[in-house]
Amino acid sequence: MTLASPLTNLLQHRQSFPALGNKSYFNYGGQGPMPEAAIAAITTAHQFSQEHGPFSNRINHWMVEEAAQTRAAIATELCVSPDTLTLTENVSVGCNIALWGMNWHEGDHILLSDCEHPGIVAAVEEIRRRFGVKVSTCPLMATLNAGDPVQVVTQHLRPTTRLVVLSHILWNTGQVLPLKHIVAACHSFPTHFSPVRVLVDAAQSVGVLPLNLADLGADFYALTGHKWLCGPAGLGALYIHPEGLESIRPTFIGWKSIIKDARDNSMVWQPNGQRFEVATSDFTLYGALREAIALHNTWGTAEQRYNRIRQLSADLWQKLCELPHITCLKTTPPDAGLVAFRIPNASHAAVVQSLEQQGFLLRTIADPDCIRACVHYLTLESEIDQLVEALQQLAG
Amino acid sequence: MTLASPLTNLLQHRQSFPALGNKSYFNYGGQGPMPEAAIAAITTAHQFSQEHGPFSNRINHWMVEEAAQTRAAIATELCVSPDTLTLTENVSVGCNIALWGMNWHEGDHILLSDCEHPGIVAAVEEIRRRFGVKVSTCPLMATLNAGDPVQVVTQHLRPTTRLVVLSHILWNTGQVLPLKHIVAACHSFPTHFSPVRVLVDAAQSVGVLPLNLADLGADFYALTGHKWLCGPAGLGALYIHPEGLESIRPTFIGWKSIIKDARDNSMVWQPNGQRFEVATSDFTLYGALREAIALHNTWGTAEQRYNRIRQLSADLWQKLCELPHITCLKTTPPDAGLVAFRIPNASHAAVVQSLEQQGFLLRTIADPDCIRACVHYLTLESEIDQLVEALQQLAG
Repeated sequence: MTLASPLTNLLQHRQSFPALGNKSYFNYGGQGPMPEAAIAAITTAHQFSQEHGPFSNRINHWMVEEAAQTRAAIATELCVSPDTLTLTENVSVGCNIALWGMNWHEGDHILLSDCEHPGIVAAVEEIRRRFGVKVSTCPLMATLNAGDPVQVVTQHLRPTTRLVVLSHILWNTGQVLPLKHIVAACHSFPTHFSPVRVLVDAAQSVGVLPLNLADLGADFYALTGHKWLCGPAGLGALYIHPEGLESIRPTFIGWKSIIKDARDNSMVWQPNGQRFEVATSDFTLYGALREAIALHNTWGTAEQRYNRIRQLSADLWQKLCELPHITCLKTTPPDAGLVAFRIPNASHAAVVQSLEQQGFLLRTIADPDCIRACVHYLTLESEIDQLVEALQQLAG
Repeated sequence: MTLASPLTNLLQHRQSFPALGNKSYFNYGGQGPMPEAAIAAITTAHQFSQEHGPFSNRINHWMVEEAAQTRAAIATELCVSPDTLTLTENVSVGCNIALWGMNWHEGDHILLSDCEHPGIVAAVEEIRRRFGVKVSTCPLMATLNAGDPVQVVTQHLRPTTRLVVLSHILWNTGQVLPLKHIVAACHSFPTHFSPVRVLVDAAQSVGVLPLNLADLGADFYALTGHKWLCGPAGLGALYIHPEGLESIRPTFIGWKSIIKDARDNSMVWQPNGQRFEVATSDFTLYGALREAIALHNTWGTAEQRYNRIRQLSADLWQKLCELPHITCLKTTPPDAGLVAFRIPNASHAAVVQSLEQQGFLLRTIADPDCIRACVHYLTLESEIDQLVEALQQLAG
């Protein structure tokens, strides 16, 4: 791995991402731009598969190896063992594996933050309907500028709480939760069952924060490769703490979940996170995600990338604060790459649509009603200035 | 749609499939060779996504439209409405949606055939463990050459039976089950609940048999695009009979499953099969599968393709029967493209490995212990002759 001098080489580095060439991109939290090399890896994998298969002993062994290398590459980013990882299609599948794998009893309690993605909320709601568990939410949105999220979570735990579901970085307000302290508080909380487990939606944190999952202590950490890591859509992973592996059972199950004997008879679960993988998936995405991860590491370490993200988001936040018609949700600089703001006298949807026509890609958020701009280490200072200029023009 | 004269144009048609150029392919039931146009469609979709997104209003609308067009293309092949389809990652996910969506009670009975794929068996086994349902198998393998599968299934139904799980074409022996009659027998069987529902593993039937699902009457039909349809790995579908939609609940759930109001608050299920779709997936596969389906239809109708498959498999079966050291499992010509045979005095794994080194791709099956050769309408008569010749050589 060669580390280039970060700032001088960014323009050159960005040329690896075709999506960045014709627009100002602020939707990294929706989907990251893919490096050309990642797209090429998909084509190469298809060609290799067609040349030697597509179904053959050779290709089947190669696919197993591709998956193993991909678990290893993700594991390195998270400072964990590959055995703790399950390859998934997306964050939601990872969350569903944890949610449906627990042995629920009527009256069990699930605590959600009030900033979770509607898809996860819907999954928890169905768990409630099926098993008669209790679900409540704790008001973390209100802690964006004041208050202590650890205290809020702890205050809402019950003796019957078995699972807390929250995001490491809140997708709507951009708040970075003090996850390690929240997990510690949950794990030490006295319940009828112990400990309270913590399921983390990591959609907005992986590829942004330098991570050491063993240190964070979360029981389940569901991530995707297609947002801040700039991998392809359709490939993510679920980390399960080694002590939690036996606490959940596989739910959606297929040939990847099991080890068969020679007669396809006695079946046992895979000994590791693979037991939660199901069946045939798009194996060409494995190499693509590895290419994307490797490319980020040629530019800088996770710490260097995160520092730049914070500098840039502080810059954007500062300049937005200076615009009289715009209100940033946060009253202090953001701790990560999400910058959420309001334009009180405008339709946010109309603003985003107008910006898109000018080549600035942002998105609206429904709750709280705002516009979300994402800055990556790939973002240019000039893009931020141009976005601020465009927002100023819209006000005029 | 232009229909070329089938036989004269096959060599030219095969040139669209790069995998067929350098080997003799008999693993269509494992994974089908992809047309060059399907691989190109993936690259094109990535380029389009990067050019106008990857996350933007325009791309998000385009992805919804891509999914809709893909459901429509699959629906046309099955003679059903697109609303009956759920796009899935593979057959197993489709089966799991049905299995986990039912409202199980202790003592309910699931009947499996004894020829189901180990991954599906493992999923049913987990349903048994979680809900205390009873699971039994009925001996369909023994009906390959004699006996009536409808009668065997019916004899194993119980007053408590709620679900029958079987494959339209058995993946190991290649037997085509009389699905319409089995479904009719199940639906008319008197039970404590009514009717008995039928979940079909369609891995080996879609792309082989001309299909009219409304006529077959199955409740759930789980298929994949990456085998006989020659689409990409990672994209399949679940058909749910319109009357069955409300009989199962979504289990793995994400933002694709629901319709939200403007504040992300009140959530309702999607009104159709989309309620079982979860979240972000590899949208570039949609166009690839449509390309593959369209290409098959330029060569001939489903009936014409199926007729050629049957002619070719009868040809292979006949020639294998004539080899003294080989025993075909079936005593009459196959009804579809799977030809299973034994070489009593050889290691099947070693034979398959040796054939692979010679450019003939086949696979072993564990139960019953055999080798499986798949013939497609794309197969050449000369490939069959060369395979038979190679098998003759191995005996010598």
